[in-house]
Amino acid sequence: MPTLFSRRGALAALFALGFAALAGSPALAAGESDPLPSWNDGPAKQSIIDFVTKVTEEGGPDYVAPPERIATFDNDGTLWVEQPLYTQFVFALDRVKALAPKHPEWKTTQPFQAVLDGDAKAIAASGEKGIVQIVNATHSGMSTAEFNKIVADWLATAEHPRFKRHYTDLVYQPMLELLAYLRANDFKTFIVSGGGQEFMRVFADETYGVPPEQVVGSTGATEWQMWDASPVLIKLPKVDFVDDGPGKPVGINRYIGRRPIFAFGNSDGDQQMLEWTAAGDGLRFMGLVHHTDAAREYAYDRDSEIGKLDKALDEATAKDWTIADMKNDWKTIFPPAKAAP
Amino acid sequence: MPTLFSRRGALAALFALGFAALAGSPALAAGESDPLPSWNDGPAKQSIIDFVTKVTEEGGPDYVAPPERIATFDNDGTLWVEQPLYTQFVFALDRVKALAPKHPEWKTTQPFQAVLDGDAKAIAASGEKGIVQIVNATHSGMSTAEFNKIVADWLATAEHPRFKRHYTDLVYQPMLELLAYLRANDFKTFIVSGGGQEFMRVFADETYGVPPEQVVGSTGATEWQMWDASPVLIKLPKVDFVDDGPGKPVGINRYIGRRPIFAFGNSDGDQQMLEWTAAGDGLRFMGLVHHTDAAREYAYDRDSEIGKLDKALDEATAKDWTIADMKNDWKTIFPPAKAAP
Repeated sequence: MPTLFSRRGALAALFALGFAALAGSPALAAGESDPLPSWNDGPAKQSIIDFVTKVTEEGGPDYVAPPERIATFDNDGTLWVEQPLYTQFVFALDRVKALAPKHPEWKTTQPFQAVLDGDAKAIAASGEKGIVQIVNATHSGMSTAEFNKIVADWLATAEHPRFKRHYTDLVYQPMLELLAYLRANDFKTFIVSGGGQEFMRVFADETYGVPPEQVVGSTGATEWQMWDASPVLIKLPKVDFVDDGPGKPVGINRYIGRRPIFAFGNSDGDQQMLEWTAAGDGLRFMGLVHHTDAAREYAYDRDSEIGKLDKALDEATAKDWTIADMKNDWKTIFPPAKAAP
Repeated sequence: MPTLFSRRGALAALFALGFAALAGSPALAAGESDPLPSWNDGPAKQSIIDFVTKVTEEGGPDYVAPPERIATFDNDGTLWVEQPLYTQFVFALDRVKALAPKHPEWKTTQPFQAVLDGDAKAIAASGEKGIVQIVNATHSGMSTAEFNKIVADWLATAEHPRFKRHYTDLVYQPMLELLAYLRANDFKTFIVSGGGQEFMRVFADETYGVPPEQVVGSTGATEWQMWDASPVLIKLPKVDFVDDGPGKPVGINRYIGRRPIFAFGNSDGDQQMLEWTAAGDGLRFMGLVHHTDAAREYAYDRDSEIGKLDKALDEATAKDWTIADMKNDWKTIFPPAKAAP
């Protein structure tokens, strides 16, 4: 296995070490030779390391200059847990409950009544229209700054029903190592998710090391207003971009303006992102997380309503894309619990 | 005047030097002590240097950590010439002429007939509706890759009517130095322009050192399609975001997700971007290019149809924002002509 900086010049290595020292990169700070310690040896891990080694080999046939080393990651189910419900939808349900005292009419209006009654079947029966109503009611009517604070406060207290940990702790340790490994090799890592862009930006930097300007997601419209001579951006009850499925290449083109050379997803909603990545010239990496571990996390694919992985699994198999089998490829799933402060 | 890396630790300096060596930063490569050699000494230059010195002074009261050093620049009239017509509109007019053989109906249909007849008054009379028709007809119906090639080919040949130079040569040398100076001080420089995002991305990296993912502009809708089993993004005849005026803070929030601490514009279309920048906490820099030099470039402000600078000039004066007076503050306007290859 190559070390992280084999085949690179001394200046570049010095530069990378300086960067790692500033950024506190875990892959380097530990002085380890294995950049992906939470991955079991096997074809998935090997395909990642082979790819990174080839595209960073100066003078090699597959070399890619650093500015073109764009890597995109789905979020829900790829970087953090998405079962039994997308985290952001849990947030929206909690917000309906929190806001209910100001909306007495919700007690008798669907889909809000169903949320307040904890009636999952009735929520599901409200369909896409109901979900949009719930999202709009909880994600608009405040300034962007107020929304960020609401999300941060919620993330600091809400716990996952099964794991009893904060949602930002339920991120995949092997994927954190992969993000750090790519960045140590001069990749720019982006999130490209169907989730809400502003929701993700609240935690993506601290949790994943992905700064706000590298988080691409679905967006609601905002409007410039003056409040007491101070400018604010107000979140409107209107979805203006859905970054999922064929929307992902659209979002990649709009926000990044370059085609990724590396993309990782976990569901059919990532299929077009992976196809868009694969269709570029030169060596490309396409990967899927396959949730196969009911004991340590969840096992689901073709029949799941959340994170359905069916067509993309067939395509990945047919085209020899990398499939990270959670049960077999990952030594650990989540980072260790933090010591109490 | 401080050197670029005064008050910074040895590792950070080493890191910055490594970065500059890799990026070929002109401000450092020349070993100069003046980071802004094309600026005359005066309040505008001094305000820039004072600001950068203060926000990079570790332990100082105005220190800003590097990730928050976001700088945004308008493009037309701030980084390159916008008179006598916005460059992108000249491109659109040229494309109408190039496409005319495929559209015989344009000979008798406005606003196209006016373009083909060179009838500027009739083009103007077609108003915003006519302009949108011209833009849609010339900016859609092809893949994003095809569009990029069309723009690149045009930029390589088209010349400005007065200066007889390529448009990408008609960029402001003092602003190129400012961009490099900010980047050498760990700022991330973004373009935030009313111009077309995909149009600007074709040249922004080579011309300004601003990579595609840091170019924010107006956008048209794109659609994912499969052509012969290969995915393409097709440009649709539909404007989906106008990044001008109050749209600029919306675009900044959407694409960057952080508030700039430094912003530079030149017209009333930049007023909200500057106000949004000013409304953040801590030290902020707001600047305007004032076109006062009819001999070397153009002189225009309150009464100009293109690049109108009226309310923003009043606000800049009232609030003591920086005004770069082109005639008095800039030693040179454009970079020297390149030697013939």
